[in-house]
Amino acid sequence: MSCKMIAKQDLDRYISDLAEVGAVPEGGVTRLALSNEEAELHRRVASWLEDLGGQIRRDAIGNLIARFAGSDNSLPAVAFGSHLDSVPGGGIYDGVVGVVAGIAAVKAIREKGIVTRHPLEVIAFVGEESSRFGVATLGSKVMCGLKNEKYLLGLRDAEGVTLREAALKQGADIRALASARRRPEELKAFIELHIEQGRVLEETGKKIGIVNAIAAPTRWFIEIEGRADHSGATPMDLRCDALPAAAELILAVERHGWKESVHKTVATIGTASIKPGVMNVIPGHVGLGLDVRGIDKESVKRTIDGIRRELEEISMRRKVRFRMHELSDEDPLVLDAGMVRTLEKICRERGIACTIMPSGAGHDAMNMAKLTRSGLIFIPCKNGVSHSPLEQADPDDIALGAEVLLGAVLELAGVGSEQT
Amino acid sequence: MSCKMIAKQDLDRYISDLAEVGAVPEGGVTRLALSNEEAELHRRVASWLEDLGGQIRRDAIGNLIARFAGSDNSLPAVAFGSHLDSVPGGGIYDGVVGVVAGIAAVKAIREKGIVTRHPLEVIAFVGEESSRFGVATLGSKVMCGLKNEKYLLGLRDAEGVTLREAALKQGADIRALASARRRPEELKAFIELHIEQGRVLEETGKKIGIVNAIAAPTRWFIEIEGRADHSGATPMDLRCDALPAAAELILAVERHGWKESVHKTVATIGTASIKPGVMNVIPGHVGLGLDVRGIDKESVKRTIDGIRRELEEISMRRKVRFRMHELSDEDPLVLDAGMVRTLEKICRERGIACTIMPSGAGHDAMNMAKLTRSGLIFIPCKNGVSHSPLEQADPDDIALGAEVLLGAVLELAGVGSEQT
Repeated sequence: MSCKMIAKQDLDRYISDLAEVGAVPEGGVTRLALSNEEAELHRRVASWLEDLGGQIRRDAIGNLIARFAGSDNSLPAVAFGSHLDSVPGGGIYDGVVGVVAGIAAVKAIREKGIVTRHPLEVIAFVGEESSRFGVATLGSKVMCGLKNEKYLLGLRDAEGVTLREAALKQGADIRALASARRRPEELKAFIELHIEQGRVLEETGKKIGIVNAIAAPTRWFIEIEGRADHSGATPMDLRCDALPAAAELILAVERHGWKESVHKTVATIGTASIKPGVMNVIPGHVGLGLDVRGIDKESVKRTIDGIRRELEEISMRRKVRFRMHELSDEDPLVLDAGMVRTLEKICRERGIACTIMPSGAGHDAMNMAKLTRSGLIFIPCKNGVSHSPLEQADPDDIALGAEVLLGAVLELAGVGSEQT
Repeated sequence: MSCKMIAKQDLDRYISDLAEVGAVPEGGVTRLALSNEEAELHRRVASWLEDLGGQIRRDAIGNLIARFAGSDNSLPAVAFGSHLDSVPGGGIYDGVVGVVAGIAAVKAIREKGIVTRHPLEVIAFVGEESSRFGVATLGSKVMCGLKNEKYLLGLRDAEGVTLREAALKQGADIRALASARRRPEELKAFIELHIEQGRVLEETGKKIGIVNAIAAPTRWFIEIEGRADHSGATPMDLRCDALPAAAELILAVERHGWKESVHKTVATIGTASIKPGVMNVIPGHVGLGLDVRGIDKESVKRTIDGIRRELEEISMRRKVRFRMHELSDEDPLVLDAGMVRTLEKICRERGIACTIMPSGAGHDAMNMAKLTRSGLIFIPCKNGVSHSPLEQADPDDIALGAEVLLGAVLELAGVGSEQT
C-alpha cells in the first residue's frame, strides 16, 4: 500500500476545471457561501463522484455527500472531504484540494479494484468561509447539529439577502435542517486535507502537517461613537472625530497581536464601517470587526483584555463612547490523539517528512470532531499566502497529501477485498 | 425700513412643515441630491411661493426659480435663496433657512404692499451636498455653466445609480442643461443666508456673520495596498496589512490639520473602504477620502504636502504601496467687497452685532459669485454642529438673519412703490 496510487494528472485536471468557476478579473476566485458559483462547483464535483459509482445526495443545507459501498455496509462510514466556497477574490486551493484529493483517493481505490470493509463518504461542505454571512463552517455546523438556527438563518449579506433566502435559492430544505444532522454511529471517522494557510511547513521544510489542535476565532464587533460635524466648518479643536480614535485602536490591536505572537496568537481588524462615510462630514461612528485567534486560551484572553484597556484609555482621552459586542468565543479544539498517531505512522511508512502542529484557521474538521474522531492534514502553500489570488500549492505536495489521505482512509476503512 | 418686518411664526411654520420630509428613525433628515425627498421639499416650497404670487419655473437640472415682478422688469433681478437637500442624517436648518428666509422676505414685502424696482427671484438649488454623487453645489454649478458635464453626469451613487439617471427620474431635462445657464446681465446680485456650521459667532457673541471669503475643499482619494492574507494562519511578522498603515495616515492627517489650524485650515478623512472587508482576511487594500480646506492656499498646500510625506514614510516602513488621486483643488474665493459693506451697513442700522468672517464650508453663493456680485450671511448654529441630527438654530437668530436678508434685498432692488 506504500507505492504511489494517486494519479497527479487527475488532481491537476480537477483543480484546473474548478478554477474557472467564479474567476474574477482582478485575479482569484469569488465563490461565496450559498452562491451560484458554489452551486456550480458542487454540480461538477457531484458528476465526477457519480461517474466513480458514488451514490450522491445533498442534505437539507446543501452539503454534497457521495457514498461508496463497502463490503459491510452495516458498518459506520469513513468520511473525508472539505469545502468548495471561497472568500471574495480568494485562491483556487483553499478547500478545493481537500475535496479533489478525496475524489482522487476514491478513484485510486476503484481503479485498484479495492473494496473497503467500511463504506466511504466524500463530503463537500457548503459555506465554510464566513465572508458572506459572518458565520464560518456553516455546512459542517448543520451536519453536527446547529445551535441558534433562527439567528443564523436571519443573518444578512452585504446586499441584505438573508442566509435563509440564499439557501432556499440554492434548493436547500430549510424547514428540515435537523434532518441534515448525522448521528455519531453513522461515521467511524472524518479526515480533511487542507492547505496550511501559513508558513510553518515551508519554514521547517516539511511536506505534511498533522494538526493536533485548532485555534477557534474569538470575534468582537467594536463601535466607536464621536460626533458627526461639517468637515469644512468645524475647527480641529471642536471635533469629536470617531475615525482617529478607531485608527488608534487599529494600531493597538496590531501592537497586542505582536506582544502575544510568541504564544502563536494573532489579532486582526478585518472590517471597518464609517458613518456617515461621506467626504464632507466628520465621521460620527466607526464599527470595527476584531478577530483574535490562538491555541493558548490565556493568551487570547490577555489580548482581548489588553485591547479593551486601550479602548477605555482612547475613549477617555478623546471623549468618544465605545461598545464591544462579543460575536463568538470558542475554545481551541484538541483533535483525537489516536488519529494524529495514525497519520504520523502513515507518513513514516511512506518516508514523508511531517510535523505535528496546531492550526491557526478554523476548519470543518473542527465541527466534525464533535461528531466523530477527526483528523486534519496540512500541505504547504507558497509563502503561507491564502485568501488571496496569490494563493498557490505545489501539485507534487497536493498529490503527496492525497496519498496520506488515501493511506488513512484505507487504514481506517479496512480492505474487504482487493483484485490485483 | 429698520422696524421688524419678518414674521417669526411664518419661519417656524415653514421649517417645521419641511422638517417632516426625509426624517429618519435614528434622528435627523436624509434628503439626498436628486432624491424623492428633495423633490417633495421643492414641491412644498414652490406651492408657498406660488401662493405669494411668484411665477414658478424649474430649470433643466431642477433648480426652483420663483420670480416676482418689479416696477421695471427690464432691470436685472435681485436673487436670493439656498438649497433644500441634506447629507444622510443631517439637520433641518442647513440650506433650508436660506430658502425659507427668502420666502418670508417676499411675504413681508408683499404684505407691506411694497413693489421693488428690480424684479426678485427666490432660488432653491438642487444637489448642494456632495454626499450622494461626490459633487457639491450641483444646481448652482449648472446655473453658472457646468464644466465636465459628461463626467459629472456619469458619477454614481452607492447604489450604482448615475447622476444622469437620478436627474432624469426627477424630471430634469438633461439634454438641455446649457439652457439652465444664466447670463450675468439677468441678475443684479445674489444673496444667500445660511447657518454658520461652525462656532465663530457663538464664541464671539455675534448674531450675524458677513462672509468675505469661502474656503473651497481640496479633495484627494488615497489608496493603500498591502497583501490580503488569512487572518488566522498568518503570523504577525508575515503580514502586510493595509489597515494599520491607513490608521497611521488617519492620525497623520489629524496631526497636520492641528498644525495648520492657526491658519484656519482643517483636514478630514471622511470615507474609508476596506478590501476585501471580511472578518477572516487581513485587509489588502484601503481607500481613504481626504478633504482639506482653508482660506490660505499656502497653508492648504503645506497640509497636503505634509500628508504626502507621511504617506511616503509609512509606505517605506510598512512596505505598502500607495497612490494619491486629486479629486478637486479649487482656490479660496473672495466675495464682493461692496456687498460686504452693504450687509455691514444694514446690520449697523439695525443695531445687530455682526462680524466679517471667512466660510470654511462651500456654498452655492461660491458659484453664483462668478455670475454676479454675491453675498453670504451666516447665522449662529448651536455648538457649531451641522451635518448632524443635533444641528440647531435659534428661531430668533433665523428671524434676525431674514431681516438682514430682507434689508439687503430692498437696498439692492430698490423700492418702486409702497402702499402703507
